Amino acid sequence: MPDPLSRTHAEALDVADVLAGFRDRFVIDDPALIYLDGNSLGRLSKATEARLIEVIRSEWGRDLVRHWDDWLPLPGVIGDRLGYALLGAASGQVVVGDSTTVNLYKGASAALDARPDRRVVVTDSENFPTDRYVLEGLVQQRGLTLRDVKADPVEGLAADEVAAALDDDVALVSISHVSYASGAIADMDAITTATHAAGALVMWDLCHSIGSVPVALDQSKVDLAVGCTYKYVNAGPGAPAFIYVSVGKQAELRQPIWGWFAQRNQFQMDPWYDPEPGIGQYLVGTPSAIGLVGVDEGVKLLTEAGIDRLRAKGVALTSLLVDLHDAWLAPLGFQLGSPRDPSRRGSHVALRHPDAEQLCAALIEHGVVPDFRTPDRVRFGPAPITTRFVDVWDGMDCLRGLAQ
Amino acid sequence: MPDPLSRTHAEALDVADVLAGFRDRFVIDDPALIYLDGNSLGRLSKATEARLIEVIRSEWGRDLVRHWDDWLPLPGVIGDRLGYALLGAASGQVVVGDSTTVNLYKGASAALDARPDRRVVVTDSENFPTDRYVLEGLVQQRGLTLRDVKADPVEGLAADEVAAALDDDVALVSISHVSYASGAIADMDAITTATHAAGALVMWDLCHSIGSVPVALDQSKVDLAVGCTYKYVNAGPGAPAFIYVSVGKQAELRQPIWGWFAQRNQFQMDPWYDPEPGIGQYLVGTPSAIGLVGVDEGVKLLTEAGIDRLRAKGVALTSLLVDLHDAWLAPLGFQLGSPRDPSRRGSHVALRHPDAEQLCAALIEHGVVPDFRTPDRVRFGPAPITTRFVDVWDGMDCLRGLAQ
Repeated sequence: MPDPLSRTHAEALDVADVLAGFRDRFVIDDPALIYLDGNSLGRLSKATEARLIEVIRSEWGRDLVRHWDDWLPLPGVIGDRLGYALLGAASGQVVVGDSTTVNLYKGASAALDARPDRRVVVTDSENFPTDRYVLEGLVQQRGLTLRDVKADPVEGLAADEVAAALDDDVALVSISHVSYASGAIADMDAITTATHAAGALVMWDLCHSIGSVPVALDQSKVDLAVGCTYKYVNAGPGAPAFIYVSVGKQAELRQPIWGWFAQRNQFQMDPWYDPEPGIGQYLVGTPSAIGLVGVDEGVKLLTEAGIDRLRAKGVALTSLLVDLHDAWLAPLGFQLGSPRDPSRRGSHVALRHPDAEQLCAALIEHGVVPDFRTPDRVRFGPAPITTRFVDVWDGMDCLRGLAQ
Repeated sequence: MPDPLSRTHAEALDVADVLAGFRDRFVIDDPALIYLDGNSLGRLSKATEARLIEVIRSEWGRDLVRHWDDWLPLPGVIGDRLGYALLGAASGQVVVGDSTTVNLYKGASAALDARPDRRVVVTDSENFPTDRYVLEGLVQQRGLTLRDVKADPVEGLAADEVAAALDDDVALVSISHVSYASGAIADMDAITTATHAAGALVMWDLCHSIGSVPVALDQSKVDLAVGCTYKYVNAGPGAPAFIYVSVGKQAELRQPIWGWFAQRNQFQMDPWYDPEPGIGQYLVGTPSAIGLVGVDEGVKLLTEAGIDRLRAKGVALTSLLVDLHDAWLAPLGFQLGSPRDPSRRGSHVALRHPDAEQLCAALIEHGVVPDFRTPDRVRFGPAPITTRFVDVWDGMDCLRGLAQ
């Protein structure tokens, strides 16, 4: 048996990796680049490149407006595929479109309208900024209160802390499933159950989960969820986001931005709004056909890989990363900024160091791409579908060299 | 002199057309296709195709997350270019992002918040459905009233009818500059002046104007304007929209969807919202890099062509279309569904016939692409930058043959 901290061991893990072949399905212009930021912007697959060019060159360039009949159903069709393969969502509950932030706004506003007598929105102190801003805006506009549950910057949010913040004045609990900073996973089942027990609605942000950590939205009885597709779904920079609204809540909730893509018989051009009864109500304006097909191709590849295999590899990649941290970096003044228990950690790891920002810049100079997160985090997000174990080893080795 | 209704005359107009060369800058897969729906989805230019592939292949595929530093400023940079070349807007007043509908929502909500004591929104009976739905949603949520000014289905909205609907209870007037159905142009100066005299704010929808009919937003003292880029701007199916907020109103107005792309020092990840003071406040979530560069290339081509020359050619194309209608189609039971005065007409023309829907389907079968608009309109939108006079002649000739 090789030393578990040796590059030989990492190479052996790659040989044994059932997902190893997927790397060849991606565009890798610079084989020497060590890309550990798949949780910020996922890589371009060859199939996605081909499909995007097809949409641009043929569907738009050649077919022109005649192709809209085929583009129109995509937000729901791709939403169904994404929900089924990655979110544990039966069909008719997910649409793809708009940005995560706009979807957070639609979902939160709908939830607040459905609990008009309640005056509190619960979130957590470590939640992603845009989630917090959307909620801050809504509570300010409506004269409500934002109640911050204190989350541990490393271990994340404890379900019992959320439960303790709930009472019959809470309308909505809005939390990220995997923390963007630490990668800590919040307990979706426990928090959702506690939220419902208090009579409130829950909205989960799945930006750092989708494609790397399985969720079971239907089984967990989640009301609302949103997320992006440009991280582990590899759909491209600024690709459209998604929103899930459980079928059981669709009749009760009504989203605030009334647009023509939600309209029943859209091209009848009726002067008054009469939205689709289901998830179609969450569509708003004309969607990007190019953006949608990027999501479609990303979902297809992840479906083929299988979310459980992606999760298993994500755990293995980050576990190697944590082991190397403990052996090499902890003695150099680093602290692990993510949960040590892999079941409580997504597919990225934060390594804390006072010089994190300079170290990130130096890593990029040396062909290793991390992502700096204020104030002191080197964030490594080894996307399971494209990252080799030797990439983790080499990236950590480079960081060790720079920090010495 | 050839007969002004002859194909020879149309050919002569093409020879004399100073913009004729621009057609070669576009991807024309099927030279026999007569595309008269540039007001629904504009064509793909060769430069746009190349730039989109560059963004996909190199900026995303090769540079990966490292390219975000260059993508981040695009919403404002491209907004400035678009505003300067096509809208008469000085810099710092336009950003590109989201859909037209989401931008209508942001603008209308901001306007209503700025006039909290007023309870009426004015629009017109022929306004585009998504504009009406957004306003209907906002007035319903806030307990306000939507006041419909009756517009003529052919001649459009009379400024004095709008003026007559104004009083000191009106918060916002929201109208389309060029009617999607008839192509009628509303009097921006007169309506804006009357709106301001009543103490209200005005928001113009420029979807069917931008790139074909010049506007002078600064000079006209417009408060807010929105529009899409997938029609005459040729930015691609579902490309991002734009929003203009006059510099004089930026301090007074605050848009409702608070997101991280509006945040001052975005990557400081501050937990509380502190937006950019200027037009940057109207950004929300992560924008589509691919969508943005499509807008950029579209604007560049239109800038090179010049909006005044595009307008002159649009007038000439639709004038030929009207002349041919009068000579050929009126005797067959058609009625002109657009203003006869070219100064009151955008770059598309509606031809009304009881069998319009079947005629549109038959035209497409014969390689002529119009667009059916309920209940009885064959809509021809000859985009000035790509459409030849012979295309208008041939399209009308085909329609004449089908209707006989």
